[in-house]
Amino acid sequence: METDSTARDLEIVRTLKAPRRLLWKAWSDPDLLKEWWCPKPWKTDVKAFEFRPGGAFHTYMTGPLPNGEQGESDNPGCFLDILPEERIVCTSMLTGGWRPTEPWIGITSVFLLEDTPDGTRYTARCMHRNGDERTKHEEMGFYDGWGTMIDQMDAFALSLS
Amino acid sequence: METDSTARDLEIVRTLKAPRRLLWKAWSDPDLLKEWWCPKPWKTDVKAFEFRPGGAFHTYMTGPLPNGEQGESDNPGCFLDILPEERIVCTSMLTGGWRPTEPWIGITSVFLLEDTPDGTRYTARCMHRNGDERTKHEEMGFYDGWGTMIDQMDAFALSLS
Repeated sequence: METDSTARDLEIVRTLKAPRRLLWKAWSDPDLLKEWWCPKPWKTDVKAFEFRPGGAFHTYMTGPLPNGEQGESDNPGCFLDILPEERIVCTSMLTGGWRPTEPWIGITSVFLLEDTPDGTRYTARCMHRNGDERTKHEEMGFYDGWGTMIDQMDAFALSLS
Repeated sequence: METDSTARDLEIVRTLKAPRRLLWKAWSDPDLLKEWWCPKPWKTDVKAFEFRPGGAFHTYMTGPLPNGEQGESDNPGCFLDILPEERIVCTSMLTGGWRPTEPWIGITSVFLLEDTPDGTRYTARCMHRNGDERTKHEEMGFYDGWGTMIDQMDAFALSLS
């Protein structure tokens, strides 16, 4: 039933300089998360951050579009799984209290942290509800966007030490 | 943001004869669940039952339609939260591993068990992604269908004692 499911995924795996403890700190506090969550000069407003399975996770981002106008991206969602310093899973398919919703893009994101001899291995996997949204997400600049977020997160986490 | 959300819910609350322990047993074992899951003479095939948060929960039901033809209802989904003898939460918005999907009806179901002096209070709440699907679900016979399931579950659980 799920034989082709990974064809609906986008994934970035990177080895980071910051230790897991500081990356977790940067991730698990909304006042810190907003500093690195979206590629600058876009800004993140964290509208909900109930850091537990079933808790609301809602980011609202604003910034300049290529045409110079102000853009926005509203992303209500829900945390699904949290394993301290190891794993965070969240989705746009549900909002707080696991309530189903109608997202503009239907994704579940999985973030994994692992120690390696060379640094912290960070996996950011984005699973889509269909291939069209996966393609659209890639064309919107997934690899650049999430890659920049990861650079910003690593640098910001290091600054916390 | 969620002010009107309960307008998207359907709910049945009933006081049952079977104790929580046996209702949980009837719920948590797919070989037992299939005996009461859908109104007879429809039958349930449990295609996946990974009884943990993030685990697949997939039922496939077949039976006669009012016109005499054979009908079917395929319902892949995912468990979200399990608190033994107290709470089960599952959704059609995701499949196993929290993977987003495109359900024919977008719901999260919450089942609660509580002891009361009169028996076991059972709450079956169905949250919908929009009002149209809530209305459609009610018109499809939600109250009769889920009510019959609950009758069947209570009687079946009592037979386990």
